[in-house]
Amino acid sequence: MQRILSTELAGRPGTRVTVAGWVHRRRLLKSVAFLILRDAGGLIQIVVTEPGARKLLEETPEESVVRVTATVTPNPQAPQGYELTAPELDVLSAVDVPLPLELHRPEMSASLPTQLDHASLALRHPARQATLRIAAAAAAGYRQALEAQRFVEIHTPKIVESATESGANVFTLDYFGRPGYLAQSPQFYKQAMVGVFERVFEVGPVFRAEPSDTARHLAQYTSLDAEMGFIAGHRDVMAALTRTLSGMFATITERTGFATPEVPAEIPAVHFTEALRIAGAPADEPDLAPAHERAVCAWALREYGSDLVYVTGYPMRKRPFYTHPDPADPAYSNGFDLLFRGLEIVTGGQRLHRHADYLAALREVGEPPAAYRGYLEAFRYGMPPHGGWAIGLERLVARLTGATNVREVVAFPRDLHRMAP
Amino acid sequence: MQRILSTELAGRPGTRVTVAGWVHRRRLLKSVAFLILRDAGGLIQIVVTEPGARKLLEETPEESVVRVTATVTPNPQAPQGYELTAPELDVLSAVDVPLPLELHRPEMSASLPTQLDHASLALRHPARQATLRIAAAAAAGYRQALEAQRFVEIHTPKIVESATESGANVFTLDYFGRPGYLAQSPQFYKQAMVGVFERVFEVGPVFRAEPSDTARHLAQYTSLDAEMGFIAGHRDVMAALTRTLSGMFATITERTGFATPEVPAEIPAVHFTEALRIAGAPADEPDLAPAHERAVCAWALREYGSDLVYVTGYPMRKRPFYTHPDPADPAYSNGFDLLFRGLEIVTGGQRLHRHADYLAALREVGEPPAAYRGYLEAFRYGMPPHGGWAIGLERLVARLTGATNVREVVAFPRDLHRMAP
Repeated sequence: MQRILSTELAGRPGTRVTVAGWVHRRRLLKSVAFLILRDAGGLIQIVVTEPGARKLLEETPEESVVRVTATVTPNPQAPQGYELTAPELDVLSAVDVPLPLELHRPEMSASLPTQLDHASLALRHPARQATLRIAAAAAAGYRQALEAQRFVEIHTPKIVESATESGANVFTLDYFGRPGYLAQSPQFYKQAMVGVFERVFEVGPVFRAEPSDTARHLAQYTSLDAEMGFIAGHRDVMAALTRTLSGMFATITERTGFATPEVPAEIPAVHFTEALRIAGAPADEPDLAPAHERAVCAWALREYGSDLVYVTGYPMRKRPFYTHPDPADPAYSNGFDLLFRGLEIVTGGQRLHRHADYLAALREVGEPPAAYRGYLEAFRYGMPPHGGWAIGLERLVARLTGATNVREVVAFPRDLHRMAP
Repeated sequence: MQRILSTELAGRPGTRVTVAGWVHRRRLLKSVAFLILRDAGGLIQIVVTEPGARKLLEETPEESVVRVTATVTPNPQAPQGYELTAPELDVLSAVDVPLPLELHRPEMSASLPTQLDHASLALRHPARQATLRIAAAAAAGYRQALEAQRFVEIHTPKIVESATESGANVFTLDYFGRPGYLAQSPQFYKQAMVGVFERVFEVGPVFRAEPSDTARHLAQYTSLDAEMGFIAGHRDVMAALTRTLSGMFATITERTGFATPEVPAEIPAVHFTEALRIAGAPADEPDLAPAHERAVCAWALREYGSDLVYVTGYPMRKRPFYTHPDPADPAYSNGFDLLFRGLEIVTGGQRLHRHADYLAALREVGEPPAAYRGYLEAFRYGMPPHGGWAIGLERLVARLTGATNVREVVAFPRDLHRMAP
């Protein structure tokens, strides 16, 4: 008999159906036993009374995989208004060791390290599943929103010749006997591709040999990158980002039912100098500390009812060399961050687009142009004014779901201490 | 004035518009000059007669970025039935060096190595652009087809603790002072995630330290992976793959206009032993050589009119240890390849799903179970029968477009000799 999902029982009362999934929970009462089966659709209750089936259930621990043929029976108390009765059980894969953590309670009691050590089991918990479904919907919504704005998807190299862009926190590898490096971002490639498609995006892994062990840093994370040409300035980039976020949040809600905050048509934006003032920080601070970011977010929520706030015009000296200065005040940049519920989740801005400006900027920071040869070529052969952004998928999802540690929203995180599973 | 694309001229005859893009070509005739402008929409002809504008055009070489405000004028000979006249030119970014290759001819005359050395320029050629747009549409169609079949997108680690799966051809890196390895595939992770979502997919980079320098191997390529649970056998996997390919090809044609071959509702399938016979190969060959694959494809085209053909039942000794044997003849596997126009573009099959079977399979190949600890845990805690596949995006696109070298369909390829640009 063709297997159906637990969500497909409606409209079939009285018929025999076959479902399959994991033994989520057993309740072995005196006169009756209940098998809660978990499949891709959710949970379904199966009522076991026949002694042979009960015996088999008693011998089939949680997380074993079973196939069940049974009768669809209306029951207003059951999760979906139906339960299954008179089951025939067939064990596809039996578990014969104790589980290192429990999955059947609404909240997992296991510590985060234990969950991460046993990720392939822990991720089966409905709450962990739900978070990863939100991440999947966020990525899908990202692509959809960008394609609607004429962005073209690209795939760029993750192995690069030079440890550029920051130099520090780069993983080194053996590339056929030569040193190679894992890309910290697709920055240079997405800029070059503006010369090809005008607007491009990439969803892919980036790598940071981050030596600090915090709740918001990962050694590998998924970066939602975009870059667009023919802009008047960074505000065009912010407008495209706002539209994109709005699309992402809509897709998340549509696909998962998870309630996302309203994205205002125009997200409030404050200049860096104003952000310092709001945060009560000294006017000569070169960057926003985490506490400052929280203060600015509190202000945006209070003043504009917005969970999101742009900070624009970060000082040039704290931004990467390819950042475009503010033409009106070149000590400040056309770069921005987007803060969400107290945390920076997007960095973006306008970039330099003239070859001569790149040479001058590299000279300024004391970097040899030779190390940037392939990168600089794109600008030598004609590039329009352009800019873009990078969203950290895990940070965004953590803020959305209220996860306090970014590791809670990744299937198999990588950090200073963890390279497995 | 708001910039419009070259594709948005229709319906505006007589009006002044602003376009922007690259100087694709100039034709400086005696009485008139033509500027062919290239933007994300394509090419547009601009007629220059006014002496000042002509002088500026003469000083603005190919690939410079310009903004042009001009009058939309019907001309049946022009690319889109319109040309622009009486232009005012504004140079946004001037090229002041000779180009290392020409972009304005229908075919690029530069050799492939020259194109790869100057990728950020060469990729602007309309033919190279078109290929990358096909790749983008293929990936989009892949996701769309899988989401319609309930597959959930995952992101898995690209840095792994053990050089598993084949051992050879793995890139080694320094992971915070310990050795780490670049993942050759998301195989183990996608299998573990079947325990979470039943059906999963990933579009992401995989890494092979491929020491041979061929036209079909890359050190990094984009793998279109999928894995699905609760299957009866490998034919369920093939059916899902066939539906997926059909969706991909439809999306490619829909988005790019590129004509894709018909995907039969049922792609012809031959058993490995029969494939050897068709190819005229000795019956004891353990695998299909490239010439054999071409012979099988010629046969499928002749007999079934199909560009695609499955070969099933590869010998177990040539498949990875996690391959599920054919229950009817355990020397052969429930593994398959999909050949397309002479080349293998997909490998897939049913996998083992019982923990004890994995331990036995690892013993058989002499691999220590300890190296697979994290992987094996998924099977210890209950996994359904499952299988999946991996499509090489670049190989698929190369076969579709007739590219003879897989490097022609990647923006910035990585191989034995090339880590830049």
